[in-house]
Amino acid sequence: MTNVLVIGTGGVGAIVAYGIDYTGKSNLSVVVRRDYEKVLQKGWQITSCDYGEIKNWKPANIFPSIEAARKIEYDFVVITTKNLPDITPLHELITPVITPAKTSIILMQNGFDLGTPFIEKYPENVVISGVSMIGSHNNNGTITHIQPDKTTIGFFDNPNLSKEFQESKTKEFISIYNNDKNSSVYNSNTKETRYRKLVYNASLNSVAALTGIDTGRLLLSGGMESISIPIMREIKQVAKADGVILPDDIINTMVHSDDGDWYQPSMLIDVKKGNPIELEVIVGNLSRVAHKLNVPTPTLDLVYLLLKVVQFKLKESNGIITIPKEFPISDKYYE
Amino acid sequence: MTNVLVIGTGGVGAIVAYGIDYTGKSNLSVVVRRDYEKVLQKGWQITSCDYGEIKNWKPANIFPSIEAARKIEYDFVVITTKNLPDITPLHELITPVITPAKTSIILMQNGFDLGTPFIEKYPENVVISGVSMIGSHNNNGTITHIQPDKTTIGFFDNPNLSKEFQESKTKEFISIYNNDKNSSVYNSNTKETRYRKLVYNASLNSVAALTGIDTGRLLLSGGMESISIPIMREIKQVAKADGVILPDDIINTMVHSDDGDWYQPSMLIDVKKGNPIELEVIVGNLSRVAHKLNVPTPTLDLVYLLLKVVQFKLKESNGIITIPKEFPISDKYYE
Repeated sequence: MTNVLVIGTGGVGAIVAYGIDYTGKSNLSVVVRRDYEKVLQKGWQITSCDYGEIKNWKPANIFPSIEAARKIEYDFVVITTKNLPDITPLHELITPVITPAKTSIILMQNGFDLGTPFIEKYPENVVISGVSMIGSHNNNGTITHIQPDKTTIGFFDNPNLSKEFQESKTKEFISIYNNDKNSSVYNSNTKETRYRKLVYNASLNSVAALTGIDTGRLLLSGGMESISIPIMREIKQVAKADGVILPDDIINTMVHSDDGDWYQPSMLIDVKKGNPIELEVIVGNLSRVAHKLNVPTPTLDLVYLLLKVVQFKLKESNGIITIPKEFPISDKYYE
Repeated sequence: MTNVLVIGTGGVGAIVAYGIDYTGKSNLSVVVRRDYEKVLQKGWQITSCDYGEIKNWKPANIFPSIEAARKIEYDFVVITTKNLPDITPLHELITPVITPAKTSIILMQNGFDLGTPFIEKYPENVVISGVSMIGSHNNNGTITHIQPDKTTIGFFDNPNLSKEFQESKTKEFISIYNNDKNSSVYNSNTKETRYRKLVYNASLNSVAALTGIDTGRLLLSGGMESISIPIMREIKQVAKADGVILPDDIINTMVHSDDGDWYQPSMLIDVKKGNPIELEVIVGNLSRVAHKLNVPTPTLDLVYLLLKVVQFKLKESNGIITIPKEFPISDKYYE
């Protein structure tokens, strides 16, 4: 039977894992860190818009760490954690569960240009992209799934492997994930899928996080037009230089996408909770690709630099970095 | 006797008022709003690094409003309030206490290009600038004054009046304010004094407020070099186009000015307390002058736009603006 490992069982990860188990075509393992004891004893309690009420659900194998999960040789490793490469370099950490030339890695995470470090580290493996539209929260092992799981799946092109092989592995993953309740569709243009999501995330999510305001108020305050839309225009130019033509009306679509809601996007919620933000994969990678392609992105770049300062603060308050007790005075001359 | 009115009796205003009273050359009135009843009964309690312990100090006249203060015709009206023209347009509000061609107006406040709206509104009056280095706080009518009062005083050039007349009025004000405890010096180059202070306030104070970090951490996080110093360079160019050559080492001086402290500048403290920030006079006026002089200030401009969104949020939370309960959906097309 196909061996699947899911790493990261927050709101999204638990529903992804349940979906794979529900489909029933694989031997499912999960890595659960914080809730390990609770899940081992009682499983998960799930209230799902797709699957209904599920009590005490447990997958076949539950491991407390990636290291502990290495006893099985996996066909697919699905990563659904928050994406914080500046804090947790997952491409390094998953080595124990990756079999070269065998294990396909599915990145079901936010962000842009995610495949690169994985393809560099595992040049013989297929790296798959999952862009999920799901809404689901984990509150101490109780999962509340409110927005249906619709996932667009494709592969990050690995130049060492044939497209046919990568496509077949991707479709094999879809076959063990897709079921009558969820919807996962194959899309051959992973780059475009990621760029589309980025038009929202790098412009609205980022500016909301920086200014501390929901997207509805961002529109009312004028910030949508003065800051977020200029960033969207920059992203369109980056995409174009990167071979992706985004739809003409994409800016209008994104501006109106939260119509009716005072919607708080993910990075704003993280800042409010004092959690680190997915800055590098949402804004940083895009800014770096823009520079590589010589596309000027001055608005995006400055928002990135400002959010790096915010991230520094969030890392300090989470004990990820420490600063000296005494202010370290230097005689460096600034001009 | 010279009639003086002080408007704004926060930490700074109370010490300025006490200094004028201590000098003893004028009939002093003050407008006290929030603490009116308390001050009328018991006066102020002051602990001052310049003046020592003062119990129950009361000036000659205490008024609860500008309107109530109009019964006297003033020679000098000293404004020491927080400077929020987007919320409180003081040049409009002080009309009852300004006698045309008689009353000189002293703006002892933060910010840049402050004189313009006052000179436009009161073309026959002298408008004086006070840039204060004082540190003083008002906690419910108890004043704690910790950093000595050193003030640089000059005039905002009013083209309708002779320089000699403006200078004589300015020096007359210094003579009724200066005493053996404080230090107020005349400086003929008001513009340069304001630009110097702005190099700090528009670059460090602004970015600290936007990112929620003190100036020491801003340096450690890299934001000083990536954001604040580029803004300082922009300000130097604006000053140059405006006829003011700032010292070569001004950037180094400003970067090192908080050495040894994890210092929280005023706008950061305001954001943390949930109070509106002095955005328009610190950042907005500078951005507008830069545009008028055709000096590109892209970093400053974007920080300004971002802080305008923050100010929107602060105004809403202070009840200064209200937003509709229901999200107002429009069919405006954005491109």
